[in-house]
Amino acid sequence: MSKQSFLADQGPGATLAAIRDTGPLVQNITNFVAMDLAANLLLSVGASPAMAHAGEEVEEFVTLASALTINTGTFTSDWLEAAVAAAAQAVATGTPWVLDPVGCGATKFRLANASRLAKMRPTIIRGNASEIAALSGASAQDSGGKGVDSTLAADAVLEQARRLALNSGAVVAVTGEVDLVTDGDAVLRVANGHMLLTRVTAAGCALTALTGAAAAVCKDPMRAARDALVIMGVAGERAAAVARGPGSFRVALLDALYNLESAQLDEEARLP
Amino acid sequence: MSKQSFLADQGPGATLAAIRDTGPLVQNITNFVAMDLAANLLLSVGASPAMAHAGEEVEEFVTLASALTINTGTFTSDWLEAAVAAAAQAVATGTPWVLDPVGCGATKFRLANASRLAKMRPTIIRGNASEIAALSGASAQDSGGKGVDSTLAADAVLEQARRLALNSGAVVAVTGEVDLVTDGDAVLRVANGHMLLTRVTAAGCALTALTGAAAAVCKDPMRAARDALVIMGVAGERAAAVARGPGSFRVALLDALYNLESAQLDEEARLP
Amino acid sequence: MSKQSFLADQGPGATLAAIRDTGPLVQNITNFVAMDLAANLLLSVGASPAMAHAGEEVEEFVTLASALTINTGTFTSDWLEAAVAAAAQAVATGTPWVLDPVGCGATKFRLANASRLAKMRPTIIRGNASEIAALSGASAQDSGGKGVDSTLAADAVLEQARRLALNSGAVVAVTGEVDLVTDGDAVLRVANGHMLLTRVTAAGCALTALTGAAAAVCKDPMRAARDALVIMGVAGERAAAVARGPGSFRVALLDALYNLESAQLDEEARLP
Repeated sequence: MSKQSFLADQGPGATLAAIRDTGPLVQNITNFVAMDLAANLLLSVGASPAMAHAGEEVEEFVTLASALTINTGTFTSDWLEAAVAAAAQAVATGTPWVLDPVGCGATKFRLANASRLAKMRPTIIRGNASEIAALSGASAQDSGGKGVDSTLAADAVLEQARRLALNSGAVVAVTGEVDLVTDGDAVLRVANGHMLLTRVTAAGCALTALTGAAAAVCKDPMRAARDALVIMGVAGERAAAVARGPGSFRVALLDALYNLESAQLDEEARLP
Repeated sequence: MSKQSFLADQGPGATLAAIRDTGPLVQNITNFVAMDLAANLLLSVGASPAMAHAGEEVEEFVTLASALTINTGTFTSDWLEAAVAAAAQAVATGTPWVLDPVGCGATKFRLANASRLAKMRPTIIRGNASEIAALSGASAQDSGGKGVDSTLAADAVLEQARRLALNSGAVVAVTGEVDLVTDGDAVLRVANGHMLLTRVTAAGCALTALTGAAAAVCKDPMRAARDALVIMGVAGERAAAVARGPGSFRVALLDALYNLESAQLDEEARLP
Repeated sequence: MSKQSFLADQGPGATLAAIRDTGPLVQNITNFVAMDLAANLLLSVGASPAMAHAGEEVEEFVTLASALTINTGTFTSDWLEAAVAAAAQAVATGTPWVLDPVGCGATKFRLANASRLAKMRPTIIRGNASEIAALSGASAQDSGGKGVDSTLAADAVLEQARRLALNSGAVVAVTGEVDLVTDGDAVLRVANGHMLLTRVTAAGCALTALTGAAAAVCKDPMRAARDALVIMGVAGERAAAVARGPGSFRVALLDALYNLESAQLDEEARLP
């Protein structure tokens, strides 16, 4: 996709600019490992994060938020019920919401939680190849997961991603060396990123939070999912250029997100 | 305030030195996002942090601690009950305790939790302008909050801060570009700090933990609140001088706290 | 111990290489403060971390994991029950498991939790001197703890460590300026490390996670415990050489773990 078509279709640079201009409030029901990085990533990119998951307040909080993200990584049953209430409220109020089914192929409990939420009309589902395969109905043996990490390429699960998109009504984003985004029919791919993103815990979960920010400012969920992948991928490339390992990479990732220029983002996007 | 008067009244440098000399044990009942930064900030400044919030042990733990901080950011009902028990024990044992009513204007549940704790004789209440306005009884529409972030200057809520101080018996610290501290009558202001502190998640929550450390070594809560603001603000200025964005700023903030010299702290304090 | 004997007995370098080669899945039931650093440390060293502690799934998750670690730092009663179920499953499936009794001398609840788990045949127990003394039955006054930190040298509690090892059947690792490892009879010591490790929250907890990774690839728990101490200690020394304080130390620690070369590790090990 050329720079011109970006300008025509409002590319990732426009999405980043809109996040910075409007500072959307993104409510996250996420796991204990991801809270710090997800919140810092949202702040670095100009959004306003809130970690609000108590059953006593989730519904009221959703009415304030511009987007909701739900990550099932460290759920217990009470968190699940709060998330279900939040998702229902998001649908009722027309608030875009993003599902991240962390490690859903690992245990029956995880798969049941993610499957229940996938039926609640998420706007976008974001996972690695193993998670998308498991959620789409692949047998555990075929889903290539090891705990919460994946051993499969995104394109290896394209058909499962399409089926999940058609069944759930959500746009499905699958991360890998080349990421893909599908609504069940069309497919977009993003080739930005760096291997060190797999060596920082919760980088995928933080991407989900960023996808929520993109969905808050961009009505088209295909574009929102794609643009979040480009923003994270380009920032990851810049961070890797100055990092000496996963510790400095994580620091540089937040700095890069803060310093990204919209115009450069469009130039550096790789959309095969 | 001149350097001389600092020496006379035991300024921020003396408080920092006392924290380092005595390494006070500061117990924190705080939110999931803040735990990492709050604990690391306390360690960097020479205090000994403990994150202990289980209902089964909070009261016993308070008897060991030199100060207690309670942050309501990700409370559920069970955490609230544990916090109430801890606060009661702090009052019973004469242990200074600090309340941080995170995002208390956002939902009824948050406001009820923070209000209940504000009635339990906190030594210091520390919040941003929107939180202090909400806790002081302003209507939600007037409190200028967006989720957990504030859009108001501290001085815009001076009268609400004074009222809250008089009603609660606590010293109230309001953070902003210029921070203010009041006991309902006198007002101190601190002009140190840097905008990047608003781009690091839980920086305010970590300041609350630091305020606990200051209260552990400094009997006068006006001074303790002011000195914590100066320590954080000066460290933030030093960190900003070497940071390339929010990621490196957070790293440099901890380094700066570790390397702060007491004498320099007094020289760099800006107390308008 | 000379380099030759390392080659003979498969030293720390061999353990590090085995972790990288096999990428063991290490399941951690750990505290809220430690989750981020423990997961990032495991990723930096080449293991695959999973934070899975829900009672609804812990037993199933253990069957997938190559090692389990249990850290009692922020337990409530429901977490304890999940941990007990996980430990039982680890023993039933022959999965090595490591216990970290954080601050167990501080409250009756902590000591009861840690003591119950210590009776469930952990492979390794890892703690600071105060924790090991408390768990071994020393009176609280003699265990030298302040909250979760210790004021004692490891060798000051050698006899308590030996007794705990004999009573529990676990290898006991005690961290301090010089660490020690004992099975109740033999004693190994590791002199690597740096003071800044005590200024980063959850560094000990993250070491416990690393000990789990070592136990996953190394059948002999004395060696696994020792090698984890050497890996952490050498990485800490390298990090300290470039750090300006606790913030940059933590970043450099993860970078150093990522860049450690197995052969150099054996050369830099200090085993008095």
